[in-house]
Amino acid sequence: MPDFAVVGKRIVNIRSGPKAVGQAVYTDDMKFPNMLYAAVLRSPFPHARILSIDTSRAEALPGVKGVVTGKNVPKIRVGALPTQSDRTVMAIDKVRHVGEAVAAVAAIDDEIAEEALGLIRVEYEALPAVFDPEEAIKPGAPRVHDEVADNVSFKFIKSYGDVEKGFRESDYVRQDTFRTAPIPHAPMEPHGVISQWNTDGTLTVWIDIQMPFLIQRAFARVFNLPEDRVRIIKTETGGGFGGKGEFLAHYYASTYFAKLTGKPVKAIMTREEVFVNTSQRHPVNITLKTGVKKDGALVSQHVRYLADGGAYMSTGPLALAIAYYMGMLPYVLPNYSYEGIRAYTNKTNSGPMQGHAVPQLRWAIESQLDQIAEEIGIDPLVIRRKNAVYPGYKHPVHVYGSCGFKETIDEVEKSLAWSDRKGKLPAGHGIGVACSSFVSGIKMLSHFGGSIVIQINSDAGVNILSGAADIGQGTDTVIGQIVAEVLGVTMDSIRVIAADTAITPMDQGTFSSGVTLRVGNAAIIAAREVKKQLLEVVAPNLETSPDQLEFRGGKIFVRGRPEKSISFFQAVRIYRYADKSMPIVGKGNYVPDVADVATMIREGGTHSPAYSFMCQGAEVKVDRETGDVKVLKLITGHDCGRVINPINVEGQLDGAVSKGVGMAFFEDQPHKDGSYLNNNFLDFLMPTSLDHPDEIPLKSIETDEPNGPFGAKESGEGNLIGVSPAIANAIYDAVGVRINDLPITPDKVKKALDSKKKP
Amino acid sequence: MPDFAVVGKRIVNIRSGPKAVGQAVYTDDMKFPNMLYAAVLRSPFPHARILSIDTSRAEALPGVKGVVTGKNVPKIRVGALPTQSDRTVMAIDKVRHVGEAVAAVAAIDDEIAEEALGLIRVEYEALPAVFDPEEAIKPGAPRVHDEVADNVSFKFIKSYGDVEKGFRESDYVRQDTFRTAPIPHAPMEPHGVISQWNTDGTLTVWIDIQMPFLIQRAFARVFNLPEDRVRIIKTETGGGFGGKGEFLAHYYASTYFAKLTGKPVKAIMTREEVFVNTSQRHPVNITLKTGVKKDGALVSQHVRYLADGGAYMSTGPLALAIAYYMGMLPYVLPNYSYEGIRAYTNKTNSGPMQGHAVPQLRWAIESQLDQIAEEIGIDPLVIRRKNAVYPGYKHPVHVYGSCGFKETIDEVEKSLAWSDRKGKLPAGHGIGVACSSFVSGIKMLSHFGGSIVIQINSDAGVNILSGAADIGQGTDTVIGQIVAEVLGVTMDSIRVIAADTAITPMDQGTFSSGVTLRVGNAAIIAAREVKKQLLEVVAPNLETSPDQLEFRGGKIFVRGRPEKSISFFQAVRIYRYADKSMPIVGKGNYVPDVADVATMIREGGTHSPAYSFMCQGAEVKVDRETGDVKVLKLITGHDCGRVINPINVEGQLDGAVSKGVGMAFFEDQPHKDGSYLNNNFLDFLMPTSLDHPDEIPLKSIETDEPNGPFGAKESGEGNLIGVSPAIANAIYDAVGVRINDLPITPDKVKKALDSKKKP
Repeated sequence: MPDFAVVGKRIVNIRSGPKAVGQAVYTDDMKFPNMLYAAVLRSPFPHARILSIDTSRAEALPGVKGVVTGKNVPKIRVGALPTQSDRTVMAIDKVRHVGEAVAAVAAIDDEIAEEALGLIRVEYEALPAVFDPEEAIKPGAPRVHDEVADNVSFKFIKSYGDVEKGFRESDYVRQDTFRTAPIPHAPMEPHGVISQWNTDGTLTVWIDIQMPFLIQRAFARVFNLPEDRVRIIKTETGGGFGGKGEFLAHYYASTYFAKLTGKPVKAIMTREEVFVNTSQRHPVNITLKTGVKKDGALVSQHVRYLADGGAYMSTGPLALAIAYYMGMLPYVLPNYSYEGIRAYTNKTNSGPMQGHAVPQLRWAIESQLDQIAEEIGIDPLVIRRKNAVYPGYKHPVHVYGSCGFKETIDEVEKSLAWSDRKGKLPAGHGIGVACSSFVSGIKMLSHFGGSIVIQINSDAGVNILSGAADIGQGTDTVIGQIVAEVLGVTMDSIRVIAADTAITPMDQGTFSSGVTLRVGNAAIIAAREVKKQLLEVVAPNLETSPDQLEFRGGKIFVRGRPEKSISFFQAVRIYRYADKSMPIVGKGNYVPDVADVATMIREGGTHSPAYSFMCQGAEVKVDRETGDVKVLKLITGHDCGRVINPINVEGQLDGAVSKGVGMAFFEDQPHKDGSYLNNNFLDFLMPTSLDHPDEIPLKSIETDEPNGPFGAKESGEGNLIGVSPAIANAIYDAVGVRINDLPITPDKVKKALDSKKKP
Repeated sequence: MPDFAVVGKRIVNIRSGPKAVGQAVYTDDMKFPNMLYAAVLRSPFPHARILSIDTSRAEALPGVKGVVTGKNVPKIRVGALPTQSDRTVMAIDKVRHVGEAVAAVAAIDDEIAEEALGLIRVEYEALPAVFDPEEAIKPGAPRVHDEVADNVSFKFIKSYGDVEKGFRESDYVRQDTFRTAPIPHAPMEPHGVISQWNTDGTLTVWIDIQMPFLIQRAFARVFNLPEDRVRIIKTETGGGFGGKGEFLAHYYASTYFAKLTGKPVKAIMTREEVFVNTSQRHPVNITLKTGVKKDGALVSQHVRYLADGGAYMSTGPLALAIAYYMGMLPYVLPNYSYEGIRAYTNKTNSGPMQGHAVPQLRWAIESQLDQIAEEIGIDPLVIRRKNAVYPGYKHPVHVYGSCGFKETIDEVEKSLAWSDRKGKLPAGHGIGVACSSFVSGIKMLSHFGGSIVIQINSDAGVNILSGAADIGQGTDTVIGQIVAEVLGVTMDSIRVIAADTAITPMDQGTFSSGVTLRVGNAAIIAAREVKKQLLEVVAPNLETSPDQLEFRGGKIFVRGRPEKSISFFQAVRIYRYADKSMPIVGKGNYVPDVADVATMIREGGTHSPAYSFMCQGAEVKVDRETGDVKVLKLITGHDCGRVINPINVEGQLDGAVSKGVGMAFFEDQPHKDGSYLNNNFLDFLMPTSLDHPDEIPLKSIETDEPNGPFGAKESGEGNLIGVSPAIANAIYDAVGVRINDLPITPDKVKKALDSKKKP
């Protein structure tokens, strides 16, 4: 490994200190003079026509400053993607899920706002509702959107090779069905916003958001403003996971009332609202047919992917496309076909969540692969190694750079003592594996990448203006490290300002694991520009040429002659006294050379500038009487390219594994007539520290990704994917039963064990 | 006048809307979670040794989170200038004026903090005090600073020509003495600060300050941090006038407690504290000896300028130097000598205030000039015209560029119908004039100028990052106009972000009327850099060369062919799709080519890049029974170069004239044993709307200043200077009495009239 000074070092996340001591300022911590509070009224019906709304009593309540209903809102459609939007900011004519916004109020305090909501009378005509995607797409099902006869919100059908021929040429073919559950993001911090309509007709919005520059576009569209009239200031964000990106009714309400009253208006969702009115992970029914040769070589695979989209489109098209494109990773797969259908149902809309649509499909593929291996008598690790893509492999769709996939399998094998223990542990005790691969960013819009501006004011530190949204994943720290490495300064000299659309350069936002690669590359370019400017004045001063100088440890010295040096900040001073134009400013931009989302959905194309690879191992004990599963070990082998910051990577992976444990065992949103039963932290189960093994070891396989900054690529998001199938495979190893429907509850395990016992 | 699109137009100040509707956020409007409140205990003695301080009862009060006294503070000396500091952040061994800080507390709310102050017991040993500067510099006077035997805080003696010879060659020589009063700045918004000691060891300070980048240095010095560890965020500032620049005990207290507790700490001065513990205009005793030829030509002038500096240095050396350098403006004066002495007294320290030390001296010069004119039988306007500097005149010290001085006199002459009315109005009714000239910025530190970064994110407006502090004078608007003019966009596209030491490029701060010229020039450079980048891609697109393109009205078009154009934002889009590195970033810096303050004080040197000129006319009616003076008319002739924004210039001049009326008639800080009698807005008199004439006409003489951005130079500060002498001269014209000691109270006028009546 190259000898880096800051990159690769265990630098503590620069945003975690303020959170630890309570200094971090979240949206709800902010108070402005004369601020009003907005609250949103929500539908109790899953599907109903709105006949009338009487707001007169609410309006008459002292302290109420405004009421708005669907009648007043613009007929504009909004969504998570810049295209394919089908949702108005509030229900206009009918409600399509329980919790959909129908009206909002602004008042001088929260309590009056709540009280006013209770005074609004809405007359509904209940309509028949549909909750199951299979039912929804049957002829004659209730229409969620009157204009969509078949309730299909999106369809994505694509293939390569000849799948039928592949099945014919296979030695073994099997088909299974799998299901995954709806999973809410459940961020610790509820979504919040403060809007202020400025006297010059511009709008300022403080908001905990993953994509400041994309939500800027949404606000501009909804309020009919040029984009440059909207300033988005990203506040500290207490978790996102994909769920803080869509334009919500709260955002509309706060901004509408801000315009109406000329006052700043705060709107913070209640915990229940976060559950019922922000998107959740798509629950998917998957039919998976796979053909292999008798040596385990994959020949052909067909996927039917029926996603329950809930009432609105959100990122539906992208979800279906991603499942296709990432489903074909990380194995050599000659023939592949995919039929993705996303159904409208009368539930909260599904949308992007860590891994987006991929964990669902890999749950199926990696579960089935173990069954195939067993049937043809091959070890689960062997079949995975057999098919694993490798350095230099030319994929029919993706363009791979670095690939340390097989080494991740080696690590898990070693850690689980696989050959000694697989199939040989006592009854009730088992081990399992699953593999995955993930992108390092996708391109949401053509020519819309990431950018960095670096500014050095006199001798006052290196100020990095970044448009990237650090939502906890450590972006600011990693960008700081990258700039520090290039400029040869320590982290003490680094200040990262992010993100504010009026101050920081644009970035497409935090999703699809693209920030480190994209913004890191931009940061390198910007830092090199700063370096070049300094070199011009420093080289003569040190009586050498620019190419003979090195930047390291806060110093600039002549290569090979560390005694001949000046400090970085001396260099800045020399620059200044050389009558150069202060401040020193460097800028960098990086747009990955891949197809953008619209092109990808329409035509295909290279998907991501880099791919990470992982193998996930699990060891479990199953209580055969209760069906309860205890996870003894989770081991992650992970090729994330160069690790810029080990602490960050570990934190990301811990988080991903934990979300994987949640997906495997707990997280679900059952409903009764469209009303969620788990819409609070008492009823909704997430894994606690007691549900994890004591240690979650991580084995990083460092590769040097040619497209990545200092060789870095994705870390964290993809690791969620393998957890639930690895656990399921371990359960099978332990007790010989297989649960195809997530989550794996004790109840389901017990039932499976009981039915197995029956002759 | 050139055909500008935005420059010269009546653009409403972009910061005034939020103030008008209450959206502007001042420091005291800001609230952070867990915030504490600091308050400062002040000395009741003008001069006393601190024998002991018992803080135990305060510390024991529930809700108190910290107490600090002079014992704990660093022995560092602070002041307004980067050099010559003589003040600790709190009194350590003795107090030198009533109101000096001796201790501070932090508590969970304001009331507890106040209560805790009352529980601190300070044992003082009263010392003899001295309040009058003449007394103070006499041998044997009580020593304000033990180590300064003569109580002279600074002495500045300088001359050119041969003054004695000049007097010998004069036809008429006279000597008079004049006095001016101490004047507090009395900003509407009391000084305030919130400090937060961040978990990474850096410090963030929200503060209403005139010099963010200079106060950054002060915080860094006091808290022993590298500058880059201090982030100053300038909050909305409700008036400065020179009084918001020094490092104050409140700033120390909030930051000390922030460090101690890890919590944000707010410290807002009470109104009384603003009066007793922030600097005030130097009260000065002036002895002025002037010799003229019989035709009125000035031959020689000697000034003895004894300034009452109060207890500390503040900007004393600069004040004395400025009085010398600007005293010699705006007349041709062959011989000039100056003896400036600044005495320590046991009062609040004097410091910079609008016009700094100049209004005091011009009060003397312009009053005396009328007396000389009368004695030698020349009209006051004629003697001023006779001596006025003119375009092309080579000054012995200053280097003049543009000069519309004589035209300002013409305007006032016309407006007052001078020749028809001077000396011819009924008894009790009179007119008078006075002239002045002022700098357009001085250079506080070598290589420390003003700078601008412009950033265009995609099609999202022109974002200007400015380190200049808009304290109400309209800087942000003017910079915005300048950038808009260069880029040919309308003000709608302009966003100005200012000022934050971590985000905006450095600027030396708002003082000495330098911002428009300095930062305006930087803005032009930055905007041209942006333009150049756009031209590269736009020219081929419009099938022409870059030099054939014009930017105007939000469009870029081929010169002479307005139909062949694209919009500015189309051009940005073309740039982006030409695969250029977004954002578009331009930077500019301007450091005036003049001597910095230290050099100027030590050696002299060119003082300012440009000089403005003014003539002030006044018309008054005097009630001969009561001595009450009613101002009927104030007319300002003003050469401020190119007017960038007429509304701003008018506002500045209205404000300056109003402060001039205050100086003439009202503003004073009498004391009893060192305790000010007027330390609140009930007792302290400032002019109200009723004390002004209905109209304050302004006649702008537009010149094209070669060093100014679009020809602009100083506006506003200098116009204060002529008001009080013009009024005094008008009073003499009306009733034949002359008051040499400001303010001109009815009592003094009455007394003068009464003694005149006596034979």
